[in-house]
Amino acid sequence: MAKNTKLWGGRFEGTVEDWVERFGASISFDQKLAKFDVIGSLAHVQMLGQTGILSLNESEKIQAGLKELLEELEAGQLDFDIANEDIHMNMEVLLTEKIGPLAGKLHTARSRNDQVATDMHLYLKEQLGHVLDKLAHLKGVLLDLAENHVETIMPGYTHLQHAQPISFAHHLMAYYNMFQRDSERFEFNQKHTDLCPLGAAALAGTTFPIDRQLSSDLLEFKQPYTNSLDAVSDRDFILEFLSNASILMMHMSRFCEEMINWCSFEYQFITLSDTFTTGSSIMPQKKNPDMAELIRGKTGRVYGNLFGLLTVMKSLPLAYNKDLQEDKEGMFDTVETILNSLDVLAGMLSSLQVNKEKMQESTEKDFSNATELADYLAGKGLPFREAHEVVGRLVLDSIKSAKNIQDWTLEELQTYHSLIAEDIYVYLQPKTAVQRRNSLGGTGFDQVKYQIAVAKKANEAKK
Amino acid sequence: MAKNTKLWGGRFEGTVEDWVERFGASISFDQKLAKFDVIGSLAHVQMLGQTGILSLNESEKIQAGLKELLEELEAGQLDFDIANEDIHMNMEVLLTEKIGPLAGKLHTARSRNDQVATDMHLYLKEQLGHVLDKLAHLKGVLLDLAENHVETIMPGYTHLQHAQPISFAHHLMAYYNMFQRDSERFEFNQKHTDLCPLGAAALAGTTFPIDRQLSSDLLEFKQPYTNSLDAVSDRDFILEFLSNASILMMHMSRFCEEMINWCSFEYQFITLSDTFTTGSSIMPQKKNPDMAELIRGKTGRVYGNLFGLLTVMKSLPLAYNKDLQEDKEGMFDTVETILNSLDVLAGMLSSLQVNKEKMQESTEKDFSNATELADYLAGKGLPFREAHEVVGRLVLDSIKSAKNIQDWTLEELQTYHSLIAEDIYVYLQPKTAVQRRNSLGGTGFDQVKYQIAVAKKANEAKK
Amino acid sequence: MAKNTKLWGGRFEGTVEDWVERFGASISFDQKLAKFDVIGSLAHVQMLGQTGILSLNESEKIQAGLKELLEELEAGQLDFDIANEDIHMNMEVLLTEKIGPLAGKLHTARSRNDQVATDMHLYLKEQLGHVLDKLAHLKGVLLDLAENHVETIMPGYTHLQHAQPISFAHHLMAYYNMFQRDSERFEFNQKHTDLCPLGAAALAGTTFPIDRQLSSDLLEFKQPYTNSLDAVSDRDFILEFLSNASILMMHMSRFCEEMINWCSFEYQFITLSDTFTTGSSIMPQKKNPDMAELIRGKTGRVYGNLFGLLTVMKSLPLAYNKDLQEDKEGMFDTVETILNSLDVLAGMLSSLQVNKEKMQESTEKDFSNATELADYLAGKGLPFREAHEVVGRLVLDSIKSAKNIQDWTLEELQTYHSLIAEDIYVYLQPKTAVQRRNSLGGTGFDQVKYQIAVAKKANEAKK
Amino acid sequence: MAKNTKLWGGRFEGTVEDWVERFGASISFDQKLAKFDVIGSLAHVQMLGQTGILSLNESEKIQAGLKELLEELEAGQLDFDIANEDIHMNMEVLLTEKIGPLAGKLHTARSRNDQVATDMHLYLKEQLGHVLDKLAHLKGVLLDLAENHVETIMPGYTHLQHAQPISFAHHLMAYYNMFQRDSERFEFNQKHTDLCPLGAAALAGTTFPIDRQLSSDLLEFKQPYTNSLDAVSDRDFILEFLSNASILMMHMSRFCEEMINWCSFEYQFITLSDTFTTGSSIMPQKKNPDMAELIRGKTGRVYGNLFGLLTVMKSLPLAYNKDLQEDKEGMFDTVETILNSLDVLAGMLSSLQVNKEKMQESTEKDFSNATELADYLAGKGLPFREAHEVVGRLVLDSIKSAKNIQDWTLEELQTYHSLIAEDIYVYLQPKTAVQRRNSLGGTGFDQVKYQIAVAKKANEAKK
Repeated sequence: MAKNTKLWGGRFEGTVEDWVERFGASISFDQKLAKFDVIGSLAHVQMLGQTGILSLNESEKIQAGLKELLEELEAGQLDFDIANEDIHMNMEVLLTEKIGPLAGKLHTARSRNDQVATDMHLYLKEQLGHVLDKLAHLKGVLLDLAENHVETIMPGYTHLQHAQPISFAHHLMAYYNMFQRDSERFEFNQKHTDLCPLGAAALAGTTFPIDRQLSSDLLEFKQPYTNSLDAVSDRDFILEFLSNASILMMHMSRFCEEMINWCSFEYQFITLSDTFTTGSSIMPQKKNPDMAELIRGKTGRVYGNLFGLLTVMKSLPLAYNKDLQEDKEGMFDTVETILNSLDVLAGMLSSLQVNKEKMQESTEKDFSNATELADYLAGKGLPFREAHEVVGRLVLDSIKSAKNIQDWTLEELQTYHSLIAEDIYVYLQPKTAVQRRNSLGGTGFDQVKYQIAVAKKANEAKK
Repeated sequence: MAKNTKLWGGRFEGTVEDWVERFGASISFDQKLAKFDVIGSLAHVQMLGQTGILSLNESEKIQAGLKELLEELEAGQLDFDIANEDIHMNMEVLLTEKIGPLAGKLHTARSRNDQVATDMHLYLKEQLGHVLDKLAHLKGVLLDLAENHVETIMPGYTHLQHAQPISFAHHLMAYYNMFQRDSERFEFNQKHTDLCPLGAAALAGTTFPIDRQLSSDLLEFKQPYTNSLDAVSDRDFILEFLSNASILMMHMSRFCEEMINWCSFEYQFITLSDTFTTGSSIMPQKKNPDMAELIRGKTGRVYGNLFGLLTVMKSLPLAYNKDLQEDKEGMFDTVETILNSLDVLAGMLSSLQVNKEKMQESTEKDFSNATELADYLAGKGLPFREAHEVVGRLVLDSIKSAKNIQDWTLEELQTYHSLIAEDIYVYLQPKTAVQRRNSLGGTGFDQVKYQIAVAKKANEAKK
Repeated sequence: MAKNTKLWGGRFEGTVEDWVERFGASISFDQKLAKFDVIGSLAHVQMLGQTGILSLNESEKIQAGLKELLEELEAGQLDFDIANEDIHMNMEVLLTEKIGPLAGKLHTARSRNDQVATDMHLYLKEQLGHVLDKLAHLKGVLLDLAENHVETIMPGYTHLQHAQPISFAHHLMAYYNMFQRDSERFEFNQKHTDLCPLGAAALAGTTFPIDRQLSSDLLEFKQPYTNSLDAVSDRDFILEFLSNASILMMHMSRFCEEMINWCSFEYQFITLSDTFTTGSSIMPQKKNPDMAELIRGKTGRVYGNLFGLLTVMKSLPLAYNKDLQEDKEGMFDTVETILNSLDVLAGMLSSLQVNKEKMQESTEKDFSNATELADYLAGKGLPFREAHEVVGRLVLDSIKSAKNIQDWTLEELQTYHSLIAEDIYVYLQPKTAVQRRNSLGGTGFDQVKYQIAVAKKANEAKK
Repeated sequence: MAKNTKLWGGRFEGTVEDWVERFGASISFDQKLAKFDVIGSLAHVQMLGQTGILSLNESEKIQAGLKELLEELEAGQLDFDIANEDIHMNMEVLLTEKIGPLAGKLHTARSRNDQVATDMHLYLKEQLGHVLDKLAHLKGVLLDLAENHVETIMPGYTHLQHAQPISFAHHLMAYYNMFQRDSERFEFNQKHTDLCPLGAAALAGTTFPIDRQLSSDLLEFKQPYTNSLDAVSDRDFILEFLSNASILMMHMSRFCEEMINWCSFEYQFITLSDTFTTGSSIMPQKKNPDMAELIRGKTGRVYGNLFGLLTVMKSLPLAYNKDLQEDKEGMFDTVETILNSLDVLAGMLSSLQVNKEKMQESTEKDFSNATELADYLAGKGLPFREAHEVVGRLVLDSIKSAKNIQDWTLEELQTYHSLIAEDIYVYLQPKTAVQRRNSLGGTGFDQVKYQIAVAKKANEAKK
């Protein structure tokens, strides 16, 4: 317990208590913003010098001090103190130690409210770049894998039941499209991230003749916020990020669920590399798709982070409120989670082994060629509804006889319908079924090759 | 209990039970899609005719039947039956009643999987237009209100404490900016909504020589989906919508919270019109801001809808699964909620009365001019940290003496610091404080006027 | 547009607009509370009579009117009007039509705030009973199924990889335990539901000499709320319900996910009855586990309802606020969802066919007996870590040779370790492996039988 | 990159990569379980000794090693290594360093699956105790505060509008009741936490003749889990905790919202102690209720943690999956958040200053006595609806004349209704209004005193 000696303590008489201070302090996590805090300060003080609010000499001295701090930071030499609450006050104290009371002038025409918002924008802007790079890489891996598996036949599923045989590449390209939309969302996310709050001050702007356009330009932001209250209280850019990250994790959870299925005893469609699996300390045979499960599981934390911030913001009056301090940890955690998950997923995909024979075999012992027979009959003039009924009965009898459609003799098949002829056995082959679905965006080989070619060109352009 | 006589019932032997059927049926809510279902069918069958898959005669007869159905639908003359599960099968049955078995040909080269996805895209595309219109209207209302209140002074808050006096218009313009970003998000939302799944069939495309580009053009979609599995299993466009709606509701909840505060006994800054308030059956004096509270409350339902669908989609394997039927009610409910909330908020704003005097008065009896004194001293050369300390002590003494800063005589003020001179009383006036914050985006009157002018131009262009 | 003629309209001058009224009205959904509203009113007016606040004659006349309304309600003869906002005002109007202005006296010492809270408590109390009944039924179905499958061997999974063979009954009993905890949670939920808010009036209690204990007793509540502000603003009982429902749906989603797997082409462990599956209008062979998917999907809506209400309640000041009107739809929807899901799940379980041979066979072609060999070696004195290593190598070689452990000759096995003897082949049999896991709560047959017997006794007691 | 030398590495040939390992490792956070991991191991090895599975000598040596580790842990002398993945393998390695290969025997008849579940149960059981203690303390603080403010009059609010005057103690006791229900929920939470999974092994139990009842007793659990699959895959106890924590945070967010209002310029009902507020580095007058805002904000993170785990668990097949590793951080974070928030809230409450005069004054200048006049007229025989109408008109005229009801002369009042007599001015006094609401649980002083007395007795019993 001690008298309040904070920089803001003038009107305070009461004591400070450590445990309360610790509850309110953010330095344990907002030190992630340290680099951006210094970079923001550098731009601010350069602007203060150019507008004459500080003398050029003052501005340069402060800049020199900040640059030293930046170097020490990068060298891992800075220590932060919880007594200084947050990264901003820690940096001010460190700068004061370095250049003396002149450090105080850095805070001319600036408040922690616009400062922290600036740090967050700078941070997220950088991270969005990383996310987009990793997405592009993942899409590249998918394209390479797809290219090698255009003619790899697998069962296509609806309701997790075999539906119709498809190209494995086609299945992969469905995920490509999801990740492509993810990229587009994160690109759009840049629009509202690339705004500079600096100079909004506490909430209302400042009486000093600052040049916000200059600060914004120095920090390479697209433009300054147009309203100072909005600048300090807006967290839309983070919510957009968390939404986008949630949708991305959802996509990855679907993919991982499928890979977990595919490497199970029941499917055996793929074999994951040893690098991306683990064993059991009890069961010597186990090879667990841990990484895929973990990505799937981490969907929860990202959804939770989104919901957390939506809750924080709900019905919060303007402008800055301390509740907003809760915007950081969820964002940091989400950035780390999606960057790592993208890496791991790409690694898993580029190292997995596809068991083509198992996949293909699976389509030869099921009824996923039933539609082919129905289409065949419809093509010969039978109304589709009638054809459907005929094939339905045939399937039922086949199940009871433990046969597949192609196992019946022509004679037997003709008892179901006389339009069935010898050529039916070709149509019943999975490969024929895939090949013939050549409608735009369908699973036919030519379509899939075209899809890949177009995507490859687009993805290359991004790199 | 009855034998299964469904269109898909060929291989089924068991009975159907009503209560199970009811659990699985969606017609009670997906009838909202009826119009779009017919429109989608019209394009599909026109395409089937033009590609020669059906004869032109067949195509025209089916189209004629569909057009009749559309008219009857709009006249409220169609009845749907839960035994027909969903809107698609209901429509097929109704069409069959009208034109006979030819109706069955409508479903050539189409499955319910691509059909329902098409309906959803058409529906949401239309609704996004309505949302954008209503946002533009709301922004217009805000601009009009702001224009009338540039020089209306109110306390600016941080931590719900008086911070610095601001222009009421400036406060309103912070919300304008939020709604502007909402508009931009819903515009981006169109990108992934404006895609046509039609022709993806069950999951893999079709063997019929369909023309998906034509279907897409006829429905005025920007382009067809490029991957058939993705086309039937993608719900990103809805998740984007629900995210955007959640952020919009969050903005409205903040505004409503503030209006609820402002019309309370303690603030009395505004008076809501009788039309947007209600009374109490017990307490005759009550005039409750019910509508503002309800909008704030409805934030919950929209967040819930977002998390509902995120949960549904989590780790769902490709392609279509019945879980996806759960995508509809939350979307419908969200559309209705935000359209109504936007209307009600606009109505409230355009009919409220601003109690300028109360607002201004509130800034004259507080300490929100303390920064002015600190800036004044800093301007006269006192280091800001010292000035802050001086003013802090003065505030503390003022509270103890139940005075405001401007209530002290010059002589008294000078005991705190000798740099204080007669002109301080001008600086301490709220209006001066506002006027002087003329940094870009600040609350100074000129800045606010400029903001409004720019926004007005941009919003006009949208109408 | 019309002059406000509401019961609360005395101090209002403005007009009412239909569309605003519709936004604020709740009658479209709170009519679900109609029965409870009348029942609550009956108790209230009986109390008013017994305490002499109304004359016995007045009380009886009002009761007679209410009873008539109740009969008409149950006969489906009551019509509600949106102009009367909510169920309470609709009922007052209907009662007035029936018994004239005396109806107004019903509202002595009561407000809509305590009235609606009472309705909600009565409603949920009744529904909790239904939920518990259906849970008991489902547990009964599980027990019956388990009893028949104690010696049905299936692969036990971790990480969706075959781990060790287990009894199918044991797997089912894991779900029994989940549903048992669900029951206990809904029972606890009764504690805070079984409280009577009636008499709390608007927020502060009343000056009338009411007898809240009597009202509570008449409504068969356990006791009245002890604080009037709490009584009208508490929604904990609903949040508890939504939490419990979310956990229940989570359990069902896990079970349904497993059943969807089990009835897939890859597993073929079970065959769902035709009643609980559907077909495809395109693919004649399809038999989709729609109901299981739908239950799994409905998890999303229940989670969403929970988060919706948590959001509504967050940072809501005391006492009643209109936001609370948003407590109803999510609760109604959740009640309906879980009651239906419990029915459907029980139906699915009692009608499914277990393919014992497929299950057992699956454990004979995998490596889930690897632990047996390691334990065997450890039992013969080899340190477990060494045994694990030996078996690991053997598994690897087996995979490369496309063999299972039991496929190797004794001679071959002994090259891995000389401690392996002829008796190993017995240990490697799945049935032996299951049987020998007889630790408390383990999958050994005796343990499973014991579990079932204990559970059966407990569940019977509940019925 | 290095060859896999893990304990489970027998069948693995591929390399391990650091970054993948780091993604999968949990030691960075599950070291919070270190103490419980050792305690669990101590019980397990004692049981192994007593059942003769290990020799008593072996058991004692291992116990001695574990006890040393426990001491070192408490002295902060243990270092964990990310290469050893999780707390369990780290502890095994550390034990091996201490006692050699005998350490390996500790894992007889145990898997990491039951081990981690045991750790989690032990951890949460201990934390629930802390939560209940802190809740009891907070309730004690509330009771003390309430006792001092039975006759402190404040406006009671509905819709944030003055409704009727109430006792400040009554308002506080509403929160007491919420926290009382929270306590009851956390007590119920113990039921499903107080279960011992130890001995469930990987998923199916074990062939060793373990004594699970003994392990459970040694760890002071109420009983062992009855099903081994359930034991390793159940996370209900954590979900219950997160639900309960969410409701608790919701209650605190409501209270903090009110305190933030109450210490605002507009209310001035309370003054928070300097210890629980902070200032601004810009605005010298600011005294911000930071701690109250932060508690309110932290509601988001707890809701997020709940939703995170619900998402993780959704549709997860049995038994253990790696996804479950995601159960920990959210739980740890929630424990820390609620413990700290309870401390801070209690501290705030016990140190705040109540501005009685401001509160009371506020009820004298409003219309919250309007109900009194209506009741007065009703008491004199005027039908309540008519009385309501009369007072409504009077309120409207009062607003227009900027008067309160009690400001009108008797003569003037009688123009509204002739039944109004001289005694009305007493009824119109807030204190009279409060005093007369003496229905059970109402705000009348006697009722409030009674509530406090009963609660005090109950809360004392818990300490």
